[in-house]
Amino acid sequence: MKKVGFLIIGDEILCGKTRDINLQTLALMMGEKGYQIGETRIISDDEDEIIKNINALREKYFLVITSGGIGPTHDDITTESIAKAFNLKLELNEEAKNELASYCKQAGLPLNEARLKMATLPIGAKLIYNKQTKAPGFQLQNVCVLAGIPIIFNGMLEEVLKTMEDGVRIYSTSIETQTVTEGVIATELSAIQKKFKGYVYIGSYPKFDEAKKASLQITFRSADKEKAERCKDEVLKMINELS
Amino acid sequence: MKKVGFLIIGDEILCGKTRDINLQTLALMMGEKGYQIGETRIISDDEDEIIKNINALREKYFLVITSGGIGPTHDDITTESIAKAFNLKLELNEEAKNELASYCKQAGLPLNEARLKMATLPIGAKLIYNKQTKAPGFQLQNVCVLAGIPIIFNGMLEEVLKTMEDGVRIYSTSIETQTVTEGVIATELSAIQKKFKGYVYIGSYPKFDEAKKASLQITFRSADKEKAERCKDEVLKMINELS
Repeated sequence: MKKVGFLIIGDEILCGKTRDINLQTLALMMGEKGYQIGETRIISDDEDEIIKNINALREKYFLVITSGGIGPTHDDITTESIAKAFNLKLELNEEAKNELASYCKQAGLPLNEARLKMATLPIGAKLIYNKQTKAPGFQLQNVCVLAGIPIIFNGMLEEVLKTMEDGVRIYSTSIETQTVTEGVIATELSAIQKKFKGYVYIGSYPKFDEAKKASLQITFRSADKEKAERCKDEVLKMINELS
Repeated sequence: MKKVGFLIIGDEILCGKTRDINLQTLALMMGEKGYQIGETRIISDDEDEIIKNINALREKYFLVITSGGIGPTHDDITTESIAKAFNLKLELNEEAKNELASYCKQAGLPLNEARLKMATLPIGAKLIYNKQTKAPGFQLQNVCVLAGIPIIFNGMLEEVLKTMEDGVRIYSTSIETQTVTEGVIATELSAIQKKFKGYVYIGSYPKFDEAKKASLQITFRSADKEKAERCKDEVLKMINELS
């Protein structure tokens, strides 16, 4: 199965100011389309780190999505760092400039140096449309560079997904129980997982609600719905026997 | 400044089932203690991935924290994978076993194979106490292996922080404005950043509220509070002049 790598670029995530929500959006939307996230890295706004990580991930995954650092301010260094990773020069992209120019005209804003920075992209970059604020993302080979602001990230991601063929959708179903804990069923659950190995992936996730009451969620993921349901039935039966 | 690497291990985060909240907790608590997160990687429950990533991060950072995958079920493979990364064998840790035995006795639960798995740790591991459910985390050299469930992660992290000396605390302050956007102030903001380069890190973060109204947060981070405040004053003055 083809997997997607995700690179989140932003000091604000690493210092705890902002909690990332783009990973979950990406995972769910890619899941719908039939692709899984292979790994995610969250790095700071640092040129060397961006170059090293983008080059590692684009070798490893068929598609890499990045978020963050493509705005007009001094701390937005993603675009030029990615150009360096590809050994490409930046140029004022005419299509991006026209998009921004018409936006600025409509909004009565000057198309100043800062805004033109957002239209200055690696040579040969393919634009990713931004319906919110018009400053586009871009694609270079298998790397798609998106904005970090969730509402803009979502819009750009929709554009990327439009260009992709459907992958293999994974069917997912789950059980939630408060009658047994992992410690009670782990051995039996492992035996059932062995039986369905390679077809169904069983995940086991304890959690605590606000009153610290424990519950257990068991998930079944498979490309084959019928096998996932059969596996779930066996686990339900096992839980009933043990509780 | 000494930086911390963070490795989140768990398919549930990568597939979008669960949104990670441990990174923000770690970032804020480490920030209080005077340390920054250098990078975070989120990987699946896969032995090769865990080994490769733990070995990369423990070379690069003075401290590595991991979360997830230390429970009793078949999909919890963090402990044995980390033992392999260190070329260490697993053994039943007597101290961990006693902790779990007394917990099980109190709760009227059998100390079965599944629960003993949580006391089976790499030889020489130092325990990290778990006040919630007693199954401990552990430390090997500069790697601290914590549970993924947030309430347990937090408790274990408190234990880790107790053993650390204070680092360099970063003073942070911010401005929130709706009167200017990044496109208006980017050039002037960049000039002020240049003036304070190496002392104050200015971050610029646009956001949209639920009604899609834009606002801009500008943050000032520095080990020197007085410089951060002076930098903020200059930015405030600049914004007043441009708005």
